[in-house]
Amino acid sequence: MVGDPIAQVRAPGVWSALFAHNGVNALCVPMHVSPVSLDVFFRGVRGLQNLQGLIVTIPHKPVVAGLVDALTPRARQTGVCNAVAIRADGTTLGDTFDGHGFVAGLQAAGQDLSGRRALIVGSGGVGASIAFAVAAAGAHSVVVSDVAADKAGALATRLGQAGFVADAGTADARGFDLVVNAAPMGMRAGDPLPFDPARLEPTAAVVDVVISPTLTPLLEAARQRGCFIQAGSVMTDHMIAAMAEFFGFAGGDWSAETIARLTSD
Amino acid sequence: MVGDPIAQVRAPGVWSALFAHNGVNALCVPMHVSPVSLDVFFRGVRGLQNLQGLIVTIPHKPVVAGLVDALTPRARQTGVCNAVAIRADGTTLGDTFDGHGFVAGLQAAGQDLSGRRALIVGSGGVGASIAFAVAAAGAHSVVVSDVAADKAGALATRLGQAGFVADAGTADARGFDLVVNAAPMGMRAGDPLPFDPARLEPTAAVVDVVISPTLTPLLEAARQRGCFIQAGSVMTDHMIAAMAEFFGFAGGDWSAETIARLTSD
Repeated sequence: MVGDPIAQVRAPGVWSALFAHNGVNALCVPMHVSPVSLDVFFRGVRGLQNLQGLIVTIPHKPVVAGLVDALTPRARQTGVCNAVAIRADGTTLGDTFDGHGFVAGLQAAGQDLSGRRALIVGSGGVGASIAFAVAAAGAHSVVVSDVAADKAGALATRLGQAGFVADAGTADARGFDLVVNAAPMGMRAGDPLPFDPARLEPTAAVVDVVISPTLTPLLEAARQRGCFIQAGSVMTDHMIAAMAEFFGFAGGDWSAETIARLTSD
Repeated sequence: MVGDPIAQVRAPGVWSALFAHNGVNALCVPMHVSPVSLDVFFRGVRGLQNLQGLIVTIPHKPVVAGLVDALTPRARQTGVCNAVAIRADGTTLGDTFDGHGFVAGLQAAGQDLSGRRALIVGSGGVGASIAFAVAAAGAHSVVVSDVAADKAGALATRLGQAGFVADAGTADARGFDLVVNAAPMGMRAGDPLPFDPARLEPTAAVVDVVISPTLTPLLEAARQRGCFIQAGSVMTDHMIAAMAEFFGFAGGDWSAETIARLTSD
């Protein structure tokens, strides 16, 4: 698993516990690679004959999409890649599972996305993947907001080109019934909130992709307003089964329920 | 840890058990890299910010000696490198610990090397490292043998230039009181013996650097002749404490006794 930073990322421990649980002789190793080293690193690890694949996290998802030999349709659509499988012929295939995990996590909690008016704050790799998956899951519309307004606009345009109702807008939660923080804002203590929780509808579902802390200040504020909240770890846990299949680990139990049990010990 | 093949190498499990035992948040990960990929791999992993160093095994030790930024005197002398530390300034330092572990392992078993007439079969990375360490430990003389006679001759010449009594010769154990198989011969079932054990002096000490199986056919034959025998794992276990210090893991217990206890569970 490759990211920068990496020490806070929970997934290597989750994957390694799942490998042990499923009798797979493998480890998920956290690898701290800075953006300037990513290209040389990527070419270097291609020479590893016992590497099954790479999981990619912030900030490398868009760049890795440009380094792989091929992309799945949804990875091409979103322009990001959070998993790289090394195929039998040695070539690399990139896919993105953030959106899949996001939707699966909400559905597992009984949250139907059809007809929702969604606001997604943050239009980077995670935001794009979530935006496309939420739209494909039947949302009424998706508004994308970003401190870099041009990035939000470009993502909204791509969503529109794919046939979805989408727009760029400000980070104002009023009127939305699904509000997502898909920005890294909140990873560090003292970060300002990505949007004003006082503007949240109490009927809205609020998800924060920030993994650590589990209950971010944003989620705590949303909870106090009566919103349904979901932590970012639910999304990551719900993408793992699909990712395991993508990497070629056939069979076994990679479910979010098993992950919860393994990581609560 | 980098090698080709790597699946048979025991050290990653030993190191990871020691890290856990000493409360060090680290793993030793086996990495299978073929010679053709080694250069690109080495440049690639240099970008890993949470990499403490590399342990190098067959067949990469001589090539890695040419890839690091600097070598210790003994690594320069032997022309091989089985450990690479990444220093505070990001540069790499290569050292070789095979010879150190070989001598320390025999000494721990009460085998004094001073005055020994040593035959070392195999003049590759391990053979060179052992030859210099045995000579430095006070051996009377070192004869090097290799199926590639020119390689054995070149190593004997380098030993002589360093002030040691050394020669190249055939793989005939008669007359030697320390006989070492330092060739990969014996790693695969059905390999021919590296030399004829019927020529061993019963008073000789015989060491086989092949790690798996622990009791190689050569060691079994030597044991039946009444020789003192030592397995290759003793050498690797006795180099770990020195290697841990080289990598910068201060304090802790990295002893061969602890390794034996941890790996017998």
